[in-house]
Amino acid sequence: MELAPAFLEGGAKVVDLSGAFRLRTVENHLRWYKEEHTAAHLLSEAAYGLPEFYRNTIRPARLVSNPGCYPTAANLAIRPLVNAGAFDPAAGIICDAKSGVSGAGRKPSMKTSFCEVTENFSAYSLLDHRHVPEVLLNSNLPEEQFSFTAQLIPIDRGILETIYFRRAKAEFTAAALYELYQDAYANEPFVKIHAPGQVPDLHSVRRTNLCRIGFSQQPDGRTVVVAAIDNLVKGAAGQAVQNMNLILGFAETEGLL
Amino acid sequence: MELAPAFLEGGAKVVDLSGAFRLRTVENHLRWYKEEHTAAHLLSEAAYGLPEFYRNTIRPARLVSNPGCYPTAANLAIRPLVNAGAFDPAAGIICDAKSGVSGAGRKPSMKTSFCEVTENFSAYSLLDHRHVPEVLLNSNLPEEQFSFTAQLIPIDRGILETIYFRRAKAEFTAAALYELYQDAYANEPFVKIHAPGQVPDLHSVRRTNLCRIGFSQQPDGRTVVVAAIDNLVKGAAGQAVQNMNLILGFAETEGLL
Amino acid sequence: MELAPAFLEGGAKVVDLSGAFRLRTVENHLRWYKEEHTAAHLLSEAAYGLPEFYRNTIRPARLVSNPGCYPTAANLAIRPLVNAGAFDPAAGIICDAKSGVSGAGRKPSMKTSFCEVTENFSAYSLLDHRHVPEVLLNSNLPEEQFSFTAQLIPIDRGILETIYFRRAKAEFTAAALYELYQDAYANEPFVKIHAPGQVPDLHSVRRTNLCRIGFSQQPDGRTVVVAAIDNLVKGAAGQAVQNMNLILGFAETEGLL
Amino acid sequence: MELAPAFLEGGAKVVDLSGAFRLRTVENHLRWYKEEHTAAHLLSEAAYGLPEFYRNTIRPARLVSNPGCYPTAANLAIRPLVNAGAFDPAAGIICDAKSGVSGAGRKPSMKTSFCEVTENFSAYSLLDHRHVPEVLLNSNLPEEQFSFTAQLIPIDRGILETIYFRRAKAEFTAAALYELYQDAYANEPFVKIHAPGQVPDLHSVRRTNLCRIGFSQQPDGRTVVVAAIDNLVKGAAGQAVQNMNLILGFAETEGLL
Repeated sequence: MELAPAFLEGGAKVVDLSGAFRLRTVENHLRWYKEEHTAAHLLSEAAYGLPEFYRNTIRPARLVSNPGCYPTAANLAIRPLVNAGAFDPAAGIICDAKSGVSGAGRKPSMKTSFCEVTENFSAYSLLDHRHVPEVLLNSNLPEEQFSFTAQLIPIDRGILETIYFRRAKAEFTAAALYELYQDAYANEPFVKIHAPGQVPDLHSVRRTNLCRIGFSQQPDGRTVVVAAIDNLVKGAAGQAVQNMNLILGFAETEGLL
Repeated sequence: MELAPAFLEGGAKVVDLSGAFRLRTVENHLRWYKEEHTAAHLLSEAAYGLPEFYRNTIRPARLVSNPGCYPTAANLAIRPLVNAGAFDPAAGIICDAKSGVSGAGRKPSMKTSFCEVTENFSAYSLLDHRHVPEVLLNSNLPEEQFSFTAQLIPIDRGILETIYFRRAKAEFTAAALYELYQDAYANEPFVKIHAPGQVPDLHSVRRTNLCRIGFSQQPDGRTVVVAAIDNLVKGAAGQAVQNMNLILGFAETEGLL
Repeated sequence: MELAPAFLEGGAKVVDLSGAFRLRTVENHLRWYKEEHTAAHLLSEAAYGLPEFYRNTIRPARLVSNPGCYPTAANLAIRPLVNAGAFDPAAGIICDAKSGVSGAGRKPSMKTSFCEVTENFSAYSLLDHRHVPEVLLNSNLPEEQFSFTAQLIPIDRGILETIYFRRAKAEFTAAALYELYQDAYANEPFVKIHAPGQVPDLHSVRRTNLCRIGFSQQPDGRTVVVAAIDNLVKGAAGQAVQNMNLILGFAETEGLL
Repeated sequence: MELAPAFLEGGAKVVDLSGAFRLRTVENHLRWYKEEHTAAHLLSEAAYGLPEFYRNTIRPARLVSNPGCYPTAANLAIRPLVNAGAFDPAAGIICDAKSGVSGAGRKPSMKTSFCEVTENFSAYSLLDHRHVPEVLLNSNLPEEQFSFTAQLIPIDRGILETIYFRRAKAEFTAAALYELYQDAYANEPFVKIHAPGQVPDLHSVRRTNLCRIGFSQQPDGRTVVVAAIDNLVKGAAGQAVQNMNLILGFAETEGLL
């Protein structure tokens, strides 16, 4: 918010990893980030940098707002199902999210000190995390239909989200959901869909730019989706490189695993 | 199932830590444990060993079925809210559960080897864990209203469950829920209720027989409850001692922290 | 150094956990702690609080200097062998020490943040740790004969020291060394000697006030001793309680495991 | 030992990661590996695959014996100092070695299960590890002058060795030792020497084929060397690729970081 305007005026293109340009209105920014927006004129210009959804608006952009780590996984897992109308939206979607400690930033604090974290597990943001509105905006969900909790795993890196849907409409069998995901991401180099009943763990995405998505469904239609990313790669720097590749005209996968 | 009948015939009292006598019918046992029950005559006699609910039936029992680790925390967190009618049951309850590795038993396996677990996090039982029916039975929930997933944290011990309720009826404000929990557990030495907005982490229950419960509520009534126990103490051996104390007439807290 | 004099003047007895009164001269304190001593008159009065060696001078003391964590294990392991003349002192003693992160104190810092420590191992004080003189003084070693390195293990608590002696004089066979240790600590409630060839790990002392010592010897007389303590118990607060028990006339083991 | 002869007869070149061809005589193999050698005719043919020392004999070899993980770091750290006569060999060299759990192999066992390893640290081979003779042979040390202990760090990968020398001859100051190491490895792509007083940690070599070496010296000549590698890369598969590159005529660094 402080630096991007000057860079843009100087002719640079900007991929912004902060939260400054992720929400679309000053009101929303004030509500979730508790601060006045000082570069409001750029809010409408900023492209939201989730290439799997917005590749065409990212390519020509001067300013790309790199998504938050949690919303990257959540949006990739949720939006295809919502868009297809696979679930009754009134039943609500629950996203129980877990992150490694690097998600809390590099600055030393008591909360991220080794002795506090090791052999521990804790919830730190219950229903009111500032990443919530990024999911509401990009997966088209009303606020009360999306419940999100952030929790700290005693590992250095990785985000795993366990997402609960109640209940799939009859035609959205496990096979149908699999096909739906496959169709959505067939040509995406960085999204991998697991066969029904198989879900990813964090080792499977560690140090990669991948988002892996799997799910399991009960006969009564209840469905759990598990999405995994490395918060430092697809959740941050890797996705920034992916966006940079797009705005500079490089191959989108350049420099990424 | 093999040993308890002989012990009972020999005049011993039994606190059974296996799953043999947790469910109440042979049909249910067959469904969830995939095996015929060979001591069916004891199913109706066995007291379910969650002292906070069943102290009076445990005291005179010859056979106590020690609860599963996950259901111990889940039932203590859920049942008071269900009994009070605080939530619309049709909205469903989601229990996202996480356990340390000792929950998987002591036998070496690839899944519990250090290099597989460290810096990892994985879901291993999605909606169909054999502990589910213990929650349905003891918290009076229909199956399709309770969704449960078990996951592995890279720590040795501890269970944390994040439980989502949608939405509290208007009168069940945070203050009312707190009072409800306080009333339910006012005299319980091993259940501690946190003030609204405060939730326990696993360090706070480590090596104790405590179940700690906290919650957070949104203005629209969505509520998240977090329950934490040490799976080896309140989730297993500690609760067995608590039950032993009851059936042998010792002080219930004897030998427990 | 700032507080103890006032406490003593007020009539209190003091067990000091800092390094203020561990060395015996102002010169030595200045050299290793890089600060002038401001309560020099108490240096000669302070009893060194390693009860296994100095119980009789601790009991009547007003001021007990609680030993450093590393020297507690090192002195218990080394002094009996040096006093017995088991090894040629000119051959030198090497103490390779490893500590959990709590040994670095509670204040957050980059060095003790989770992401820096996990999946890492590092040496942080090579031959010049300020705990060295405590070993020289209490095990009667000349400086050049004792080499000590401190290293950080990615665990919360525990110290393990691997101590190399070259070579035992002929009569100091493994059996003789075992007997020597047994004699030294036969009546000590907090020192346990393992049979020859068996050495302790950190789990075996976790949350206890024990120092466990084991060793292995080659036919040519080379000998490795492994000593383990919990740095927060026998290495700090537990030993302080042990000292408090002594100066207040309680049973020495009161409140300790 | 079972497979290599057939592969060689079939015309293949072999880089052997087992211990079968690391020692040079059947007697030595029998002593340290407790088994008769069944392919003794290949012992003299096998090139020891530490390219920094034996590049010229590796290049034309049909059979390369990939070094053990511990000896890779130990030999790279020790041999230049021994060859230069920097220390009185009679004073002995102590190598205190620590390894991540992957060094114990992939097969599940109680010793490598998560709950046994986490928050623990243990010594498992005191002075008699089967990797000892590889250091004796390649660094030209008599057995009684080299003491080695292997220990388990609760991490997945990495070896750090803390090596004690007493005392450097007068002309081998820290500056001289640094120059000596620099000269030895000036052109080596996979060996990095730290400035005097700086030592590597395990994060600095993680997932690389590097061996990093640093040291610290006291005014009286006592010197500690710290060597770090990733046991799965420079300590195993990475070095095997390096050797494969040599025998197949590829660039030695091909495919390696």
